[in-house]
Amino acid sequence: MGSSASLTSTVAVVGGGVIGLSCAWRAASAGFVVTVHDPAPGSGASHVAGGMLAPVTEAVPGEPEVLALGTASLRRWPDFAAELATAGADPGLRTRGTLVVALDPGDCAELSRLAEQLSRMKRQVEVLSGREVRRVEPSLGPQVCRALSVPGDLSVDNRVLMNALLMACRNAGVTFRGQRCTALPVADVVVLAAGAHSAELHPALARAIRPVKGEILRLRSRRGTLPPPSRTVRAIVGGRHSYLVPRDSGRLVLGATQREAGFDTDVTAGGVRELLTDAERVLPAIVEYVLEETAAGLRPGSPDNLPVIGELEPGVLAATGHHRHGFLLAPLTADTVLALLRGEPVPEEARPATPTRLNCGQPVRSAP
Amino acid sequence: MGSSASLTSTVAVVGGGVIGLSCAWRAASAGFVVTVHDPAPGSGASHVAGGMLAPVTEAVPGEPEVLALGTASLRRWPDFAAELATAGADPGLRTRGTLVVALDPGDCAELSRLAEQLSRMKRQVEVLSGREVRRVEPSLGPQVCRALSVPGDLSVDNRVLMNALLMACRNAGVTFRGQRCTALPVADVVVLAAGAHSAELHPALARAIRPVKGEILRLRSRRGTLPPPSRTVRAIVGGRHSYLVPRDSGRLVLGATQREAGFDTDVTAGGVRELLTDAERVLPAIVEYVLEETAAGLRPGSPDNLPVIGELEPGVLAATGHHRHGFLLAPLTADTVLALLRGEPVPEEARPATPTRLNCGQPVRSAP
Repeated sequence: MGSSASLTSTVAVVGGGVIGLSCAWRAASAGFVVTVHDPAPGSGASHVAGGMLAPVTEAVPGEPEVLALGTASLRRWPDFAAELATAGADPGLRTRGTLVVALDPGDCAELSRLAEQLSRMKRQVEVLSGREVRRVEPSLGPQVCRALSVPGDLSVDNRVLMNALLMACRNAGVTFRGQRCTALPVADVVVLAAGAHSAELHPALARAIRPVKGEILRLRSRRGTLPPPSRTVRAIVGGRHSYLVPRDSGRLVLGATQREAGFDTDVTAGGVRELLTDAERVLPAIVEYVLEETAAGLRPGSPDNLPVIGELEPGVLAATGHHRHGFLLAPLTADTVLALLRGEPVPEEARPATPTRLNCGQPVRSAP
Repeated sequence: MGSSASLTSTVAVVGGGVIGLSCAWRAASAGFVVTVHDPAPGSGASHVAGGMLAPVTEAVPGEPEVLALGTASLRRWPDFAAELATAGADPGLRTRGTLVVALDPGDCAELSRLAEQLSRMKRQVEVLSGREVRRVEPSLGPQVCRALSVPGDLSVDNRVLMNALLMACRNAGVTFRGQRCTALPVADVVVLAAGAHSAELHPALARAIRPVKGEILRLRSRRGTLPPPSRTVRAIVGGRHSYLVPRDSGRLVLGATQREAGFDTDVTAGGVRELLTDAERVLPAIVEYVLEETAAGLRPGSPDNLPVIGELEPGVLAATGHHRHGFLLAPLTADTVLALLRGEPVPEEARPATPTRLNCGQPVRSAP
């Protein structure tokens, strides 16, 4: 493999988000000489994210490879978190599982279809009535009429994790360069992990990676209000999908809108209104919660919702296009990049993420 | 009068909000030696406010003295603004007038009652159909079915005004002390203008002044969206009252909730959701506006919604309790305080604001 590199090779990682730092930490721990290039590591989409590790409840019918990739990466998460706790700091993993809840009859029908689909795929799921789900999560409102329990889908506190990754990188000897890259830096191998900005840095990605804006809110319960649920709650409200991810100290993350509007990180009044309206029907107590923060991030979207992990040209690896799944896919992505750096075979499940599927580096036919 | 003071007297103003700074500027301009005590002048409720100068459209039936006081102060506003422009900086006065708009049939009925009431009081108002009002303000949505035009009700950019007042105070020789007052400072005359915190500083106000929380949002229109209306819009939406006050540069202030919950300045998810939902029905374009800021301030409420302006004891004047009307009532309040400092008669319209009406300084009978 063109990018096969010896252990004394220099590796430049462009992008200090969850993917870039995970790759940098793994590579430095394996003995590579690693530099991360980012004007503000940990500040982009990774700072805004919800942090769901939820391949099953994020699954979209008709995208089996995305589910398989996510499932494979989730299997690596406990070890990834444990090693990070040793090498850096508490990674903020939360293991209480996930509920999908539905409100209107149409939402319940969608939930039932999802349950059937998942049980056909032999996934561990349980259907609960509204009454049953309120027994385990009393803060869910009376409009919740059906739920699906998916204990295997987890979450991580994105900001706690980013701090742990930064510490682990520093402890492993990674150096940081604060200048924004306008071209690929000089190194034996470059790992391009610049998220939504990756397309600007390599022509092969120009048509493959696009920004997908997501708005997200951070809330905090107050004295005298019901605390947030202990599990992640994915909600289907009038056909719209949203999520409520609990954090420590009574905090809650509400997300996320999806909007394709270029490199725009404005938080819109409409996005905030929509998120709050839907969440209030799921968790009525939030009317009294503090709205601590509103933010928008840019996910790196790809044409088939799979990431792009692999060689773009000799000495240049891509690790981008993770869309909504950056935190979930970080362990598998880092393992795949490390295998590529070592010239070893990549994990089987990561093969569909190869850039060759998108004809990257080759002219792509335009739509007719 | 006990507080009558010579021109070389020292005056300590406690509180650097719109009332405190207006009084300080007027007193210093008249030759008094003035000190303002505030840890962060201009940062409290005055920083959060909507800045409506709207005695007519803020009028509550059954409170004729509040309307009379507001009308008298609004008459003083053009001169107040012109003098401030000379003494400080542009005061941010906006003279395009105010519309009251109604959406549902019940809201329209309320609007009609308000129109009748105002025309009985010989106020200049005009009733418009939904179509007519959209001709003058095209950004108003199709659900707006009736409107009342009140050209005399104005607005001011609260932050621009506070900057102008700060500059005018400095130019007039006012000195600033940054320590928070826990007791009244030493001076020939103290002007207690600490807003919602006034009750803590004088026993006579202990039962008279209470905090009334208001949440408010600041939005900005974006390229490709309809700009905000040029007039202030007061909306009656499903019986709830809110306002949309335009600012320069396509900005818009949305307010305000009213909540009696002590000294709590948390912005709640429910408050934000309510303001955005109602405003979106009035001005559909805001879904694409940027939500730039959420904030909460504490208005100083009084038992009868009139401010408290006058002598509490020899050498101590109150200028507080302005509730929702601090910006509107600033000119009249400053003139009244200056008259008291000089030992002159106060303006006739300010007489109902005397502390004696509340038995201030005397034990107040408890409710049975």
